[in-house]
Amino acid sequence: MRVEIVAIGTELLLGQIQDTNSAWLGEQLAAAGIDSHFHQAVGDNPRRMVMALRTALSRSDAVIVCGGLGPTQDDITREAIAEVMNVALIVDEAIVDVIAQMFSSRGREMSENNRRQAEVPVGAAIIAQVRGTAPGLICPVGNKVVYAVPGVPYEMSEMFERAILPDLRSRIGDDDAAVIRSRVLRTWGSSESGLAEAVGPRFDHHATSGAGVTVAFLASGIEGIKVRLTAKAPTEAAAVALLDAEEAEVLALIEARYGDIVFGRDDETMEHAIAALLLERGMTLGLAESLTGGLIASRLVAVEGASAWFRGAIVSYASEVKHNLLGVPAGPVVSAAAAVAMAEGAARQLGSDIGLSVTGVAGPTTQDDQPAGTVFVGMALPGRPPEAFELHLPGDRPRVRSYAAISALDTLRRALRSS
Amino acid sequence: MRVEIVAIGTELLLGQIQDTNSAWLGEQLAAAGIDSHFHQAVGDNPRRMVMALRTALSRSDAVIVCGGLGPTQDDITREAIAEVMNVALIVDEAIVDVIAQMFSSRGREMSENNRRQAEVPVGAAIIAQVRGTAPGLICPVGNKVVYAVPGVPYEMSEMFERAILPDLRSRIGDDDAAVIRSRVLRTWGSSESGLAEAVGPRFDHHATSGAGVTVAFLASGIEGIKVRLTAKAPTEAAAVALLDAEEAEVLALIEARYGDIVFGRDDETMEHAIAALLLERGMTLGLAESLTGGLIASRLVAVEGASAWFRGAIVSYASEVKHNLLGVPAGPVVSAAAAVAMAEGAARQLGSDIGLSVTGVAGPTTQDDQPAGTVFVGMALPGRPPEAFELHLPGDRPRVRSYAAISALDTLRRALRSS
Repeated sequence: MRVEIVAIGTELLLGQIQDTNSAWLGEQLAAAGIDSHFHQAVGDNPRRMVMALRTALSRSDAVIVCGGLGPTQDDITREAIAEVMNVALIVDEAIVDVIAQMFSSRGREMSENNRRQAEVPVGAAIIAQVRGTAPGLICPVGNKVVYAVPGVPYEMSEMFERAILPDLRSRIGDDDAAVIRSRVLRTWGSSESGLAEAVGPRFDHHATSGAGVTVAFLASGIEGIKVRLTAKAPTEAAAVALLDAEEAEVLALIEARYGDIVFGRDDETMEHAIAALLLERGMTLGLAESLTGGLIASRLVAVEGASAWFRGAIVSYASEVKHNLLGVPAGPVVSAAAAVAMAEGAARQLGSDIGLSVTGVAGPTTQDDQPAGTVFVGMALPGRPPEAFELHLPGDRPRVRSYAAISALDTLRRALRSS
Repeated sequence: MRVEIVAIGTELLLGQIQDTNSAWLGEQLAAAGIDSHFHQAVGDNPRRMVMALRTALSRSDAVIVCGGLGPTQDDITREAIAEVMNVALIVDEAIVDVIAQMFSSRGREMSENNRRQAEVPVGAAIIAQVRGTAPGLICPVGNKVVYAVPGVPYEMSEMFERAILPDLRSRIGDDDAAVIRSRVLRTWGSSESGLAEAVGPRFDHHATSGAGVTVAFLASGIEGIKVRLTAKAPTEAAAVALLDAEEAEVLALIEARYGDIVFGRDDETMEHAIAALLLERGMTLGLAESLTGGLIASRLVAVEGASAWFRGAIVSYASEVKHNLLGVPAGPVVSAAAAVAMAEGAARQLGSDIGLSVTGVAGPTTQDDQPAGTVFVGMALPGRPPEAFELHLPGDRPRVRSYAAISALDTLRRALRSS
């Protein structure tokens, strides 16, 4: 069973709103073990909507159409589906009554326009409306099916879960049922091509084994490179067992080549890794940020419960603030010595166990004779001499700042894990 | 000229990442007056990618393919396009050299995998890579064309502006040319429905005048509500004249109802407004941030040349930091008195002319008996008694933090403009 998603709306094509429905539906279908090979978006145009539906039906078994069920003249999904089904549209007076009652319960009069929402292609079944005024539709087309749901995410998701997913399941029957599960390993500090080489033996293995597992890479900018493991199996337990086994193999290959570069799984960010390590050790953190300008602090504060381990930060953007408040000695402020003094100054001024600092050149111009992208991370950990690490980061000003932020956190993560 | 966008990546179909490229490209094409009637997304599967490309070429004149140009085994856009063109792929050694040099300039070795990124379908032209390792491609297919660009937004957008848009323009020629220009007025501090009511008279006017101007509203979360004016005219000058006239009318209606809520135009953010005002007055700014945790500082530092007016920030997340470093008196730290003391402490410790502070409850739990969403903004301006403003902001933790950041900056903007 292959399901295609067709999102309706000229505003999607014009980029005026982001289509979040297709991604959500894709995720739900995958979790249910149902394949979705194509998504389309098309505007509020009758001829092109019919083209998109016919294309979808030619290459998929079921189509979910989102949007175009509103009451106004540019809501024409009902007409387009009726044309594809080659049937007439008729007004269902029972639906008119439901809509009229929704309006009167809010103390309002139903407008004449809303009668359009009660139009149903002959032969289609209704998905009763619970959250909005437009009902959804289940429309047979030969041995295939087109589902129509409103574009409002809150209405769409409810109809998908209540009516479409059960209908899809009943069409699949038990024989084909498969569960797809995936897991993401998050890495920082390698290249996508290097990771692919390291994990290469697994690709060769999967190509011949047919075990229902795949590995893919996703370069995610300042979130590093994600390694996605996907398993397809008859049951949840079998899929998870496949993922567990694959994760062990992949982790071993990555660690053999790069060491400790996997900082989290699935939704675990670098901040979460730091939070867990600090909580485990009962330590508090203070920051001194220059070029990152508060970026690291704001990421850390986004973690719920940060007050247990995060004291604060001094954003020393002006050099005088570095000298006066953090005790950085006279001389260049983009240097290992300045980074160390900043880390020590942060811990002292903020009363934290650990001080972490970043100073560097975000660009576009040079500073202290250092080119853009030069960054020093300073770290003061209890019971260890303070250290500084020199980095050379690529990209423009925002990239250098973002990379500096995550690099500093990763430097701390590695130090905590190895101590 | 109709352009179809095809987004590549199984992760898009699975809803693991949101496809922001298609919306961005749709917006750019619309701004250039070029139609885009269909978008598609397809996974990393050779047969289905070829199907999607053939479908796109059957109903559009040009296709922009985003993604699948990476160095790994699952990056197969080059192969799919070569099949659609019915030509071979060959390695371009000049591109190999460029990639090898990119690696060596970062002190790294190019992996063998990266040679894949130098493969070019016979007859395709190259879009030189500036920001990443993968070049883009311009691939003629009969009298139509397929453009391939990386899926990384930062690389994609640069190639679109530098190479694809000019290529599309040259294909269109001068005859079809209608110029569409738009302008965005950025507002903070009203509701979308309130703005729509205020600007209502313009809608009535456009409905009858046929002047080629439209007004639309775009609720943009922490960026406020954008009012987009769009004009279509035979020439650039005529379009700009229409926009100028419309802007004057719309601004007058907005100001009559809401006062000074338009803080910028087009790409001018709230930070840019603050920067311009501070530069004009020759003043410097220092911050004390609690719940925003460095968010305001990091937004300000993102402005080029911020060092001329931004001194730094003290992120006083722990209460002790507020008391010890900023001189906040004993007592509740979510209060007007604390906000004022923080603003004064920031100016004193950071040596700035102006001190701006934010303290409050991001949630989900209460603090100092204040519910989540309660925020105090403190402001210490030279020659004026310090002030505090109490806000009640909606939403979850990240929303409250973001709204607090922009609200604090808007508070400062209004104070500076009225002084």
